[in-house]
Amino acid sequence: MAKYLVTGGFGFVGSHLVEELIKNGHKVTVLDNLSNGHLNNLKHVSKEVMSYIGNVEQLQSTQFVETFDGIFHLATAPRSSSLKDPMRDIESNCKGMIAVLELAKSHNAKVVFTSNSGIYGSTTDGSAINERSINNPTTPYDANKLVSEYYCKIYHNIYGVRSAVVRFATVYGERQVVNEKLNWRPLVATFVKNVLNNEDVMINGDGEQTRDLIYVKDAVQGVIKAMDSSVVDADIFLLSTNKETSVNQVLIAVEDIVEKKARIKHSEPLKGDIRRMRYDYSKAKSKLGFEPKYTHRDGIMKLVEYSRAHLSN
Amino acid sequence: MAKYLVTGGFGFVGSHLVEELIKNGHKVTVLDNLSNGHLNNLKHVSKEVMSYIGNVEQLQSTQFVETFDGIFHLATAPRSSSLKDPMRDIESNCKGMIAVLELAKSHNAKVVFTSNSGIYGSTTDGSAINERSINNPTTPYDANKLVSEYYCKIYHNIYGVRSAVVRFATVYGERQVVNEKLNWRPLVATFVKNVLNNEDVMINGDGEQTRDLIYVKDAVQGVIKAMDSSVVDADIFLLSTNKETSVNQVLIAVEDIVEKKARIKHSEPLKGDIRRMRYDYSKAKSKLGFEPKYTHRDGIMKLVEYSRAHLSN
Repeated sequence: MAKYLVTGGFGFVGSHLVEELIKNGHKVTVLDNLSNGHLNNLKHVSKEVMSYIGNVEQLQSTQFVETFDGIFHLATAPRSSSLKDPMRDIESNCKGMIAVLELAKSHNAKVVFTSNSGIYGSTTDGSAINERSINNPTTPYDANKLVSEYYCKIYHNIYGVRSAVVRFATVYGERQVVNEKLNWRPLVATFVKNVLNNEDVMINGDGEQTRDLIYVKDAVQGVIKAMDSSVVDADIFLLSTNKETSVNQVLIAVEDIVEKKARIKHSEPLKGDIRRMRYDYSKAKSKLGFEPKYTHRDGIMKLVEYSRAHLSN
Repeated sequence: MAKYLVTGGFGFVGSHLVEELIKNGHKVTVLDNLSNGHLNNLKHVSKEVMSYIGNVEQLQSTQFVETFDGIFHLATAPRSSSLKDPMRDIESNCKGMIAVLELAKSHNAKVVFTSNSGIYGSTTDGSAINERSINNPTTPYDANKLVSEYYCKIYHNIYGVRSAVVRFATVYGERQVVNEKLNWRPLVATFVKNVLNNEDVMINGDGEQTRDLIYVKDAVQGVIKAMDSSVVDADIFLLSTNKETSVNQVLIAVEDIVEKKARIKHSEPLKGDIRRMRYDYSKAKSKLGFEPKYTHRDGIMKLVEYSRAHLSN
C-alpha cells in the first residue's frame, strides 16, 4: 500500500487512474481545481478519496496531512486554449510543475508527469516518432510541457527528486467530455456526442489528419508502470499505439457503432494542428513493460456505451 | 530612424544598447522594473529616452504612445536566483516573453530576444558548442530561456511575428554590478570590486571552470546586427568569442591590471554550474556579420577604469 497524490484526479484520465490505484489497494489524495474535472467522476469511490479543490500552482508542501510516496501530476490547462490564453497556460503548466516538484522534494516522493507528444509537432510522411525525435512545439502548451520535462530533469540532477515522464498520444475514453468554455473538444468524445445527439459534425480541414489514439485504460496502465518502475531520472516514455487513425476514420467508426450517419461540415484547418501522428512505444515496452491492449474500435465502443447512459442526463 | 523598445534598458547590457541606438539616431523607449537596473545608467542620455518603470510580464500593448518598429527584449530575472525562486523566474522569463510577443504582434514590430547559452549546460572536454548542439538546461532559468525561444518560433509560425534570438556567452563590462539581494555576482565585476576594495575573493570550487567572456560592446554590436538583419523566423545565433578563460585566469588579469594581489578563499562548487564554456559564433559571423573586437584583457581594463571612477561613490 502506497500513499499517492493525483493532481487533476477528478479529470478524465485522472479519475480512471484514481479508480485503478484504489482497486490496487493504495491510499489516494486528489488535488483538482475542477476547471475540467467533475466531482461526479469519482462519486462511486468518494469515500475512499481525500480531496483538495484548488490550483496546482498554488499547492503548498505543508497543506497535506499525508506524506506522499508518489505524485501523479496530471493537472493541466488544455492544449486547445493555450494560444488564446498563454499566460494561464504558463500558470497551470509551468508553475504547476514547479509546485509539484517542490512538494516531491519535501516529501521525498517520486513524480510521474504526464507530458504530451504534441511536443514533436507534425510529421509529414507518417513515419513513427520516438523519444529521440526532434522537438518542435507548435503551441505554448507544447512548449510548456517541454520545459516542465526539463524542470523534472533539473530537480533530479540538483535535488535528487525522482521522476519519470510519459508523453501521451491522443487519449480518449469514458468521461472525456466536450468543454466549450475551455475550448476543449476532444476528437472522439465530440464525434460520439454529435452523432448520438444528431448534431452537425465539424471537421477541421479535410479530416485526413491522423492521430495515434490510445484508450484511457491503456494510458493508465502505462502511467502506473512508470511509477512502479525503477526509472527515477526524469527519463521520457511515449505511451501510444504506433497506429495512425484519421479523423475521417474515427467518424466512420462512430457511425458504424452508433448505426447512424452523421451530417458533416468542414471548417478551416486549425492553426498549429498536427497533420500526422504515430508514435513508437518500444522504449516504454522494453523499460516499463507497457503494451496497449485496446483497438480504437474497442475503445470507441466503450465510449459510446458510456455516452448512451450518460449524455441524456 | 527607427522606434525601438528596449526591455531591461536600464540594466547592464540594456544601457549600453540604448546608448548605441541613440548614437545611431534612433528613438528609444525603455521598460525596466529597476530590480537590477539603475536610472543612473542612462542619466547622461535621460532626455533622449522615454521610460516606463514596471515588470515586463505586466506590459500592455496599449500602454505605449509609440508604435514600435522593433523590440529588444533584454529584461530578465537573473540566472543565479532561479533555483531559489523558480516561480519568480517563470513570471519574468516565461510570461515576460509572451507579453513582449503579444506587443510585437499588435505593433507589427520585430523582436530580438537575448537568450542565454547556459541552455547547453556544461561540456566536459572544452569542445566548442554551436547552435545545433544538444540542449541541456541545468537551472529553471536556462529552461525558461529555452521555452522563450520556442515561444518566438511559435509566434512566428502562427502569427507571423518577426524575431531573431541571440544566445549570449558570459557578458561583462562597465555598469555590471554585484547585486547581493538578487544573488547576482557576475564573475568579472565581482573580482574587480573585490580586488579594488581589498575584499576577499571567493572562488567556487577550484577556479578551473571556464567562461567564454564577451565584452558588452561586442554583445551590443551583435544584438543590433540581429535586429538589422533579414532574419525573421526566430533563428538562433550565438554571440561569443570562441575562447575559454578560466575563473583563475580572470582573477590573474584583474590582479595584473589593478597591480594588486588578491586574498583568495575557495568555497564549494556551485550546484548546476557550468564547467567548461566555449561557443562557436561562425553562424552569427556569416549570417549577421558579427565579429567580437575586444580581448578579455581589453574589456577587463575598461571595467577597472570605470570601477575606479565609480566604486568610491
